[in-house]
Amino acid sequence: MLMSASVPPRRVVVLGSTGSIGRQTLAVIAAFAPHWQVVGLAAGRNISLLAEQAERFRPEVIWFEGAESTPWAGPGSVEPPEEMVTRPEVDTVVVATSGRAGLVPTLRALEAGKIVALATKEVLVIAGSLVVRAARAGGGEVRPVDSEHNALWQCLDGEADGVLDPTWDQPLVPGRFSPGRVSRLILTASGGPFRDWPLDRLGQVLPEHALRHPTWRMGRKVTVDSATLMNKGLEVIEARWLFGAPWDRIDVLLHPESLVHALVEFTDGSIKAQLGPTDMRLPIQYALSYPLRLPNRDLPRLDLAAARSLTFCRPDPDRYPCFELAVQAGRLGRTYPVVLAAADEAAVDLFCEGRVRFTDIPGLIRQALEAHGPLPNPSLEDILQLYDETQARVKEAVECRRC
Amino acid sequence: MLMSASVPPRRVVVLGSTGSIGRQTLAVIAAFAPHWQVVGLAAGRNISLLAEQAERFRPEVIWFEGAESTPWAGPGSVEPPEEMVTRPEVDTVVVATSGRAGLVPTLRALEAGKIVALATKEVLVIAGSLVVRAARAGGGEVRPVDSEHNALWQCLDGEADGVLDPTWDQPLVPGRFSPGRVSRLILTASGGPFRDWPLDRLGQVLPEHALRHPTWRMGRKVTVDSATLMNKGLEVIEARWLFGAPWDRIDVLLHPESLVHALVEFTDGSIKAQLGPTDMRLPIQYALSYPLRLPNRDLPRLDLAAARSLTFCRPDPDRYPCFELAVQAGRLGRTYPVVLAAADEAAVDLFCEGRVRFTDIPGLIRQALEAHGPLPNPSLEDILQLYDETQARVKEAVECRRC
Repeated sequence: MLMSASVPPRRVVVLGSTGSIGRQTLAVIAAFAPHWQVVGLAAGRNISLLAEQAERFRPEVIWFEGAESTPWAGPGSVEPPEEMVTRPEVDTVVVATSGRAGLVPTLRALEAGKIVALATKEVLVIAGSLVVRAARAGGGEVRPVDSEHNALWQCLDGEADGVLDPTWDQPLVPGRFSPGRVSRLILTASGGPFRDWPLDRLGQVLPEHALRHPTWRMGRKVTVDSATLMNKGLEVIEARWLFGAPWDRIDVLLHPESLVHALVEFTDGSIKAQLGPTDMRLPIQYALSYPLRLPNRDLPRLDLAAARSLTFCRPDPDRYPCFELAVQAGRLGRTYPVVLAAADEAAVDLFCEGRVRFTDIPGLIRQALEAHGPLPNPSLEDILQLYDETQARVKEAVECRRC
Repeated sequence: MLMSASVPPRRVVVLGSTGSIGRQTLAVIAAFAPHWQVVGLAAGRNISLLAEQAERFRPEVIWFEGAESTPWAGPGSVEPPEEMVTRPEVDTVVVATSGRAGLVPTLRALEAGKIVALATKEVLVIAGSLVVRAARAGGGEVRPVDSEHNALWQCLDGEADGVLDPTWDQPLVPGRFSPGRVSRLILTASGGPFRDWPLDRLGQVLPEHALRHPTWRMGRKVTVDSATLMNKGLEVIEARWLFGAPWDRIDVLLHPESLVHALVEFTDGSIKAQLGPTDMRLPIQYALSYPLRLPNRDLPRLDLAAARSLTFCRPDPDRYPCFELAVQAGRLGRTYPVVLAAADEAAVDLFCEGRVRFTDIPGLIRQALEAHGPLPNPSLEDILQLYDETQARVKEAVECRRC
């Protein structure tokens, strides 16, 4: 007889509840009801799905784009995300919005001492230093939901002996590990659907090709970012903030099967890897259940004997120029990552709308980075303004080219 | 600048110093001299190598087969293993003898509260309950050196939340993990050199074929045991004692590349794996440095991008009857594992001497197990006597068959 872990209570706000991660978060919460409850839901424009979710999960508060002026007949009262996350009954906020929308609620939640289960890469990429400051000020903690960072977190947790390394910053993730033990963090990447396409055919890639990810089912933006490997560049920047790792200790390997989510190499040459089925509910659940692990029959198991073989290789820089741009912007720091993320979001939009080619994406981002005069200590307002301006500028540039 | 871990002092006895693991242990100790020192060395019949080792490492005490009656001119005085391991200045004993020779010194060391870095599978297989009792009585601890168990230990360490599982026994390994988090321990096996031979050709296997292991360089006995998969069966029994795991939670996968040494599946479906180059110095060093990890430039690094692909499959029971015999003997418990280990040692000797065929090995072991009337609570003397009697009986049976 197994004496399973008793499920700890969680009272959760889900930002981006109608997106891919948001829906999977609600599936995980449902598996542990009534111990896990939804306090708040915030969505974008998919109001019908939000209404369904509200019927099922009975949140106290909800939000959607235009909620100020649109009547809401469903359960829960209307409250903006940055307010709902600070409610005293909330302990955990899942941030799974796309783009910059998650930033302000993340900062407010951390300042209020909440646990932030973070799925939105852009938050740390564009405002890592503000997130660190908010977490320190309010005692909040950041738990990575991204499968790669969640995997690094799992591999590092418990690897503690008090050995320091002053080239590392203090990590944002909870748990105990000693930077002095770690020699490399290795993120894996599927390489996207065009890993094996001839380079000279990449100009012909259509949005419907890019949206067909080989291993993960995800939202539109992140799927295109996987195809350009921008996704992995953003994750390198994210890893730097989450774990405090110096740039030269973060590495990327292509791993087309997406079963090994990340690896950590330690100073003695030993490597730990985290593996699992390509199902985001596993890292979401770990982020919510930590420091416990909870059995969940809804989740698939990975049968390695049934898996194809696991392969690894280095990414080809000629195939993935966006990856290098991201790492360069990360290393330059200051507001370069803001421009990177904003230009990428605009470029992906333009590509999905059929207005630029797949191979135009890196050029648009490079242009924006080259034109940028960085700010040394940007405020939240600086960042948000720069983000919006950069997006507008990238879109304008394409408009002008066409006229 | 990396503030590396300061090397803790270790004063070590190496039993089986002239064997494969013993030599590699001395190489690791040399890398951390003068912090790590050799107090005692014990060998079998390779006295010339022992003399070289003694010249280099200047032990206080030495031992070899026949030392009672043979003069010793080298450094160090002569002292039997079971005495040298209890010396007050000793903190760690590496047990890397073959067969049953390591048993008594292991028990004495544990009773004296020492750390035992255990490489000899037979010790736990034949006398697991005595080892547990000795460790409890004297406060000693067992640290696995075998790459697979060392890997399990690394994957489990730190996975603690206090959740119990009464089907597990208390583990022998140090460190913190909660059985209630663990759903499966998975040992990997190369499958040996005959993994892909036609089954009907296995009768033609010669000792020189069996001694050509595809991935690891090891001693003769363990190399043949890898070819029959007996090795992995013994390791399942060992894992049961080291980690306290119930039988049905220990699994084996063939993994021809031998880069993933073991995996742990947790209750939430997440899997952690430990990987490293096929070099026993890594697990030896971890067993000696634990709870620290120490950088060591002598050790190779694993470059996954350069590695062939990693593959996994279930072992074919028709190809590896010894594996099933071992697991059956383990599950039967009592003195069955003693008979298993002794009969296997005798059968491997006979095979290496060219007196039986490779495919005769499982039959000889099965015969010995079937003839056995088990003892419920064997003493040390019972076990040693049974071991020697079983070996003699297996060899006699073959002699009789020939006359």
